[in-house]
Amino acid sequence: MADKEPQQPKELPIVLVHRLPSYKIPLDPSFRDQLRSQFHMLDPHESPEPYDSFLARHAPFIRVLMTIGYSPISAEFLERLPVLELIVATSAGLNHIDLPCWSRGIVVTNASLAFAEDVADCAVGLLIDVLRRISAADRFVRGRLWPVKENYPLGFKLGDKRVGIVGLGSIGSEVAKRLLAFGCTIAYTSRNKKQSVSFPFYANVRDLAANSDVLVLCCALTKETYHMINKDVMVALGKDGVIINVGRGSLINEKELVQCLVGGEMGGAGLDVYENEPNVPKELFGLDNVVLSPHCAVMTPESFEALDQLIVVNLKAFFSNKPLVSVVSNE
Amino acid sequence: MADKEPQQPKELPIVLVHRLPSYKIPLDPSFRDQLRSQFHMLDPHESPEPYDSFLARHAPFIRVLMTIGYSPISAEFLERLPVLELIVATSAGLNHIDLPCWSRGIVVTNASLAFAEDVADCAVGLLIDVLRRISAADRFVRGRLWPVKENYPLGFKLGDKRVGIVGLGSIGSEVAKRLLAFGCTIAYTSRNKKQSVSFPFYANVRDLAANSDVLVLCCALTKETYHMINKDVMVALGKDGVIINVGRGSLINEKELVQCLVGGEMGGAGLDVYENEPNVPKELFGLDNVVLSPHCAVMTPESFEALDQLIVVNLKAFFSNKPLVSVVSNE
Repeated sequence: MADKEPQQPKELPIVLVHRLPSYKIPLDPSFRDQLRSQFHMLDPHESPEPYDSFLARHAPFIRVLMTIGYSPISAEFLERLPVLELIVATSAGLNHIDLPCWSRGIVVTNASLAFAEDVADCAVGLLIDVLRRISAADRFVRGRLWPVKENYPLGFKLGDKRVGIVGLGSIGSEVAKRLLAFGCTIAYTSRNKKQSVSFPFYANVRDLAANSDVLVLCCALTKETYHMINKDVMVALGKDGVIINVGRGSLINEKELVQCLVGGEMGGAGLDVYENEPNVPKELFGLDNVVLSPHCAVMTPESFEALDQLIVVNLKAFFSNKPLVSVVSNE
Repeated sequence: MADKEPQQPKELPIVLVHRLPSYKIPLDPSFRDQLRSQFHMLDPHESPEPYDSFLARHAPFIRVLMTIGYSPISAEFLERLPVLELIVATSAGLNHIDLPCWSRGIVVTNASLAFAEDVADCAVGLLIDVLRRISAADRFVRGRLWPVKENYPLGFKLGDKRVGIVGLGSIGSEVAKRLLAFGCTIAYTSRNKKQSVSFPFYANVRDLAANSDVLVLCCALTKETYHMINKDVMVALGKDGVIINVGRGSLINEKELVQCLVGGEMGGAGLDVYENEPNVPKELFGLDNVVLSPHCAVMTPESFEALDQLIVVNLKAFFSNKPLVSVVSNE
């Protein structure tokens, strides 16, 4: 892949920084310095030159693009980068990237490895919170209701719950590992049955739901998974069923989810992601069996530090012709 | 111990039910029927006879007492039961019982075995909630702040946290098992070093705190553990330190805890129990690094079912002269 090794400071390998103009670069200053000491970071929004001419002038030399957050990458944009070989994404989900780029042989790395543990912690936290009503309990205490009402409603035990994991990648596997320690049983669905795990596999999410008390959504949002959790799946999950979503909002038909929750056709939900962020359906605000967090499952300093390291490892690997560590498969 | 076997329905073994008059019996009706089919359940508060004369009349035959919830058992009360051999407690903590009764040879069973998993789940839920700010995130979303403020503050990763467990009994052991799956490291203090576990042991809680990021309190409240978590321990735990309390409120000097939290001398706290329940220090209500639940760590139907079974198993074991299953050691 790499046709020359990085040698001199003045010949640092070029990396195009792709971001929405409105995005402040969420990179730690010391990490930015670290990147700049090893790579020639081209950021069109930092140049006085008009964006289009800046891009056209550098495009023939841009083999690597680092995309910040959820800055969209369209097919049209990719056509302007004829020699692009690698996209380094700083997110776990890639639904902002035109993935048919794979057909051109462009390789994509993502941040799932850096984020998996924190996202899994958040998923488990949301699940305990919904089943044991912790956020609602906190609201009860702060609302000074304890001395008045005395008895707080019973929650539900985590142990023995049948948890169906939708997408058993790096995040889903971390969720499974944690929930086993609580005595949950695990099953999963994913694009393909995984030979390396012994959990029961269901070929479709409806069958998984029919055999689960809880669904945890950790899969990528693609054309195939858009609205995969619809009313049919929720009904199959049942009246006490709980859905945890740490994937993407549009994995769920949010309108049907709200109907099922408001109508008591589901047991509860723990949601970190929504269809129209930062807007959250206000019908959910009155429900005690719902826990709502603002797309913050990856939000720890440790996650971002791991991400920084992952980015550098992948960039260095690419330019020294070594294996990348977090390539997203297009299967 | 038992000098006769239960034989005839009319000769059912006698069990005194001890409860505060204000306590509604929190037993499931079908469980009460089950108990009454196997034991002669004597409840002074169900008799028209005055309490004292009822108790005096039956006392010579009362070898077993079942105490409901936190109904206090004083030394004076125990003196009125000269042939008492067994107290079956329906709680995990026994601080409402005059434990010098042990010196008379009275055996006490508690509910820790039935409650351990649910209490541990709650402890872990509170810890994730504090570190990852889940209840505060839920408040942020419901308060419609997400579209206004955009960025929610970073939380803290669970993995690699050094967790010190105070009291490694059935509850503490379940907490440890769960937190290992999150990548935490475990150490503990308890009355004695346990030969059966390999976690590092600290002889006192201050040393444990000095070597921990998180303390989880799961020990009994006794004269020795009253206010064991004082300002000195909190300072040793450090500015980012977190305390989770699923034991009893008075394990902590609550006044000093409030001072440390309000003054930023601690990282946060997840509290299910308080010194003066149902009153919770109102200084905590404005803090986002604190999660407050209303003494509900055992509150699941599954816990109560397990408790019912544990009570029956212990009562049947006693009257058939077999080993009890949840005897509390007085060491």
